[in-house]
Amino acid sequence: MSNSGMVELPVLQDAPAVPCCPPITAGELSVADSEKMAAMFKALGDPVRLRLFSKIASHPGGEACVCDIQDVGVSQPTVSHHLKKLREAGLLTSERRGTWVYYMVAPSVVAGMSAMLDLRG
Amino acid sequence: MSNSGMVELPVLQDAPAVPCCPPITAGELSVADSEKMAAMFKALGDPVRLRLFSKIASHPGGEACVCDIQDVGVSQPTVSHHLKKLREAGLLTSERRGTWVYYMVAPSVVAGMSAMLDLRG
Repeated sequence: MSNSGMVELPVLQDAPAVPCCPPITAGELSVADSEKMAAMFKALGDPVRLRLFSKIASHPGGEACVCDIQDVGVSQPTVSHHLKKLREAGLLTSERRGTWVYYMVAPSVVAGMSAMLDLRG
Repeated sequence: MSNSGMVELPVLQDAPAVPCCPPITAGELSVADSEKMAAMFKALGDPVRLRLFSKIASHPGGEACVCDIQDVGVSQPTVSHHLKKLREAGLLTSERRGTWVYYMVAPSVVAGMSAMLDLRG
């Protein structure tokens, strides 16, 4: 693929997301926990964002260069916007390596979401 | 609590939601799967909806009368709206029993969401 005309992405530091919450079967969520977890689920509530997330999660090591995950049928600024939303929600972290920004799945956050929906818990 | 003035809720039949998708680490989601799963995650992407869902999921048997889950700080029509969204996304089913509508967690759908985010998969 051609990388010409790519816009450099800023690498912002977000506060680390701490996974939360017992399994949803364990009791009613507090208001604070529901706001925190809803933001994470909302981040996956868009088809393009979910595809981007699956591209990163299924890359070796759970990380991918932004240059490798742009073929989702939307513009590069839109890809950047979606990646920013995923990062702000704590599901991804990012790191600049030379020219490119790499995105990594935040395993503890995603595992926390999975555990929360684990009805065996 | 007083049940006077409660509006009767229609019990609509939605197509059964079939859980999908291998773990997100297994590969890139298809467009169709990403649309299907994003709708499910989006349904949990609202704090009030997530609290309602946790109330139902943590009730004995994973089901609750609508009369038992209204204390989430929003109006009864708003509760109904949120429950409809959860049902349309396939996360809940509903059943009328006498005067009241009962909502039940759809275990296979929720388990499918959990499994999709299971990074050990």
